[in-house]
Amino acid sequence: MTTAELHVSTLKRTQFVPITSLIAEVIASRGWQDGVITIFVPHTTAGVTINENADPDVARDMELFSDELVPQSNRFRHSEGNSDSHIKSSFYGSSIQAIIRNGSMWLGTWQGIYFCEFDGPRKRKVYLAFAS
Amino acid sequence: MTTAELHVSTLKRTQFVPITSLIAEVIASRGWQDGVITIFVPHTTAGVTINENADPDVARDMELFSDELVPQSNRFRHSEGNSDSHIKSSFYGSSIQAIIRNGSMWLGTWQGIYFCEFDGPRKRKVYLAFAS
Amino acid sequence: MTTAELHVSTLKRTQFVPITSLIAEVIASRGWQDGVITIFVPHTTAGVTINENADPDVARDMELFSDELVPQSNRFRHSEGNSDSHIKSSFYGSSIQAIIRNGSMWLGTWQGIYFCEFDGPRKRKVYLAFAS
Repeated sequence: MTTAELHVSTLKRTQFVPITSLIAEVIASRGWQDGVITIFVPHTTAGVTINENADPDVARDMELFSDELVPQSNRFRHSEGNSDSHIKSSFYGSSIQAIIRNGSMWLGTWQGIYFCEFDGPRKRKVYLAFAS
Repeated sequence: MTTAELHVSTLKRTQFVPITSLIAEVIASRGWQDGVITIFVPHTTAGVTINENADPDVARDMELFSDELVPQSNRFRHSEGNSDSHIKSSFYGSSIQAIIRNGSMWLGTWQGIYFCEFDGPRKRKVYLAFAS
Repeated sequence: MTTAELHVSTLKRTQFVPITSLIAEVIASRGWQDGVITIFVPHTTAGVTINENADPDVARDMELFSDELVPQSNRFRHSEGNSDSHIKSSFYGSSIQAIIRNGSMWLGTWQGIYFCEFDGPRKRKVYLAFAS
């Protein structure tokens, strides 16, 4: 297994940031050929997901829905006031796996990978691990 | 790592299709013995999940709940009118992992794997990767 | 690949139980050094997630939100009356992956792993698989 680390800067409280090309650059520069990549977000108020990479409105609709489903609310106990961010983090999850074949991620035509910010703006990290 | 591909035909807009036996057949025919299998859906309006394999009403209740939680709605921006399908895709997620021991998936007694269709009916694919 | 099994006893119907230290003990005792660990819940009314490990109120807020989002309801068909538990299981998911480096899980500072009980109290299992 080999690992790498990415850095992502977010600009809004809730923001889906496309990171497919950042990950593809790491795969190319490291020469990762055939295996499974684990994409892991080491934060508890952010997540990672796969969704449409073509129309940016899909990411905007997902931001809208996330905030409607779990609004900021004073009924939660956690004193930092960002319990909604923690819940959204588990909603989308902290890690995904993708298959790498011949040095490229084996994704569907319309699939892209998104870093999901739920308590930005912040500077964030993404951990990558490749196992062949 | 070795890979395989499955084909699934769905019949309704929202449908949980059991695919455990299809995956078990691939594992047997390829002779995959001990390792981790990644089950990956290369679509942005479908997902994959594990849930009860005994009572078909559980899958029906999950279909019902999915459509209640994210109804088709004209408040979304994405012009194809299937933003709800994209959101449900990320709700369930695009990939799962299962452990294979002695040539069989190490699942709980009541667990089965479901392809989750949210914009059918369509012809769909599932990618499999086995790493030992 | 090598595997291990954990046992968890839950005390409430909905309960997020921290299991990070239990997993860390297995990693240490088995001498797992560098690779990816799959943490798999073999139950259809429970799940696993990563979230904040510092303030216990975050786990309580997640329990509260889970029961608000999917209340027990007689509109579901499944005759055992725990369809809400099955839905919550797929909401959080049955498995997560974490990266292990130099014998320790490569988590963020505030991240902990939670067993998510949605139909307790029960005696439960967690399957672990390590691949280097």
